[in-house]
Amino acid sequence: MIPENIQRFIQTFSRLPSIGPRQATRLAFRLIAWGPARIAALSQALTGLAQVKTCTRCFFVHTNTDSLCSLCKDTHRASDIYMLLEKETDLISIERTGKYAGTYFILGELTKSGVLEDIHIARLAVLKQSIENTPQKKAREIIIALNPSTYGDLHTALLIKELAPYTEKITRLGRGIPTGGEIEFADEDTLGHSLERRN
Amino acid sequence: MIPENIQRFIQTFSRLPSIGPRQATRLAFRLIAWGPARIAALSQALTGLAQVKTCTRCFFVHTNTDSLCSLCKDTHRASDIYMLLEKETDLISIERTGKYAGTYFILGELTKSGVLEDIHIARLAVLKQSIENTPQKKAREIIIALNPSTYGDLHTALLIKELAPYTEKITRLGRGIPTGGEIEFADEDTLGHSLERRN
Repeated sequence: MIPENIQRFIQTFSRLPSIGPRQATRLAFRLIAWGPARIAALSQALTGLAQVKTCTRCFFVHTNTDSLCSLCKDTHRASDIYMLLEKETDLISIERTGKYAGTYFILGELTKSGVLEDIHIARLAVLKQSIENTPQKKAREIIIALNPSTYGDLHTALLIKELAPYTEKITRLGRGIPTGGEIEFADEDTLGHSLERRN
Repeated sequence: MIPENIQRFIQTFSRLPSIGPRQATRLAFRLIAWGPARIAALSQALTGLAQVKTCTRCFFVHTNTDSLCSLCKDTHRASDIYMLLEKETDLISIERTGKYAGTYFILGELTKSGVLEDIHIARLAVLKQSIENTPQKKAREIIIALNPSTYGDLHTALLIKELAPYTEKITRLGRGIPTGGEIEFADEDTLGHSLERRN
């Protein structure tokens, strides 16, 4: 009953994160109603992603002709301060604060296995090598910027152990009550952190 | 900071129904990580939709060489019983019951304006013409299958007025307690319908 082309679309698109078969089905019919011109525009935007490269130094995305992203090429950024992040969208959020002018390093998304996987170990090797290639052979600071969750804390501990020999100082993002939050409704852990880190 | 290609993807994809800028951003980075092969597969599935046509008789989708969908071409289906539906996914749900063997007619999604829009009026004209072209010049039955909501009821009333002259009988889907539902938690309107339509 449902044409082959639509079935293939639903199958392929429902494998995308947070798009299920229902949403993919609705999407298919909406796109057909929109017509070939808009479908072509979407397809073009999609294939444009195939040209995006990954920075060999920090693993953020870029479309530069060489192998480094625009952040790594920016000579105004401190090259001896590193911030470790799980994913590109975390980097974008930090960069939007305008309060960090060091180097970034994307580790890849951490799973709830509680251990570092091959991709993370391979990337950490790149980070260590890049630090060892500097004149001082040590970073001035490494900021571990993982989500403040049980698993984030576990992974942070692992990363501190891995990276302590490569840096003078190792830090993590401050924890406490978020702006706009209410003391009354803050959980105990958050309130505890806000007390410990009062200033 | 975010490459042009990614920005274009986010802009284009966040215009899709139920995909916001956040989901589009996450999607972009996930697709880049998946690599060009999977991006190409998605793009192919997408462009496949451009070949899907709309049935000139019932407005359902098809990829046949002529202008009619496979349901309208099926001579085992009663061609003098029509079911009016808002959208293709409603048709698929009804068809899955295996309990309807008449003709379908997709009216297009109704808005909360409470009036029929140009597209609906144009499609109703097609339906009326198709009924007038039959030997009897009248349908045996028209089933109005809109969602059982306030707006659905309003639109159903409008459609009954429009279509009454074209059919011997005009009906709507039965209303009552859904299978698996509980009397205790059913709303008053649903319970009222289940009493009125007891059998």
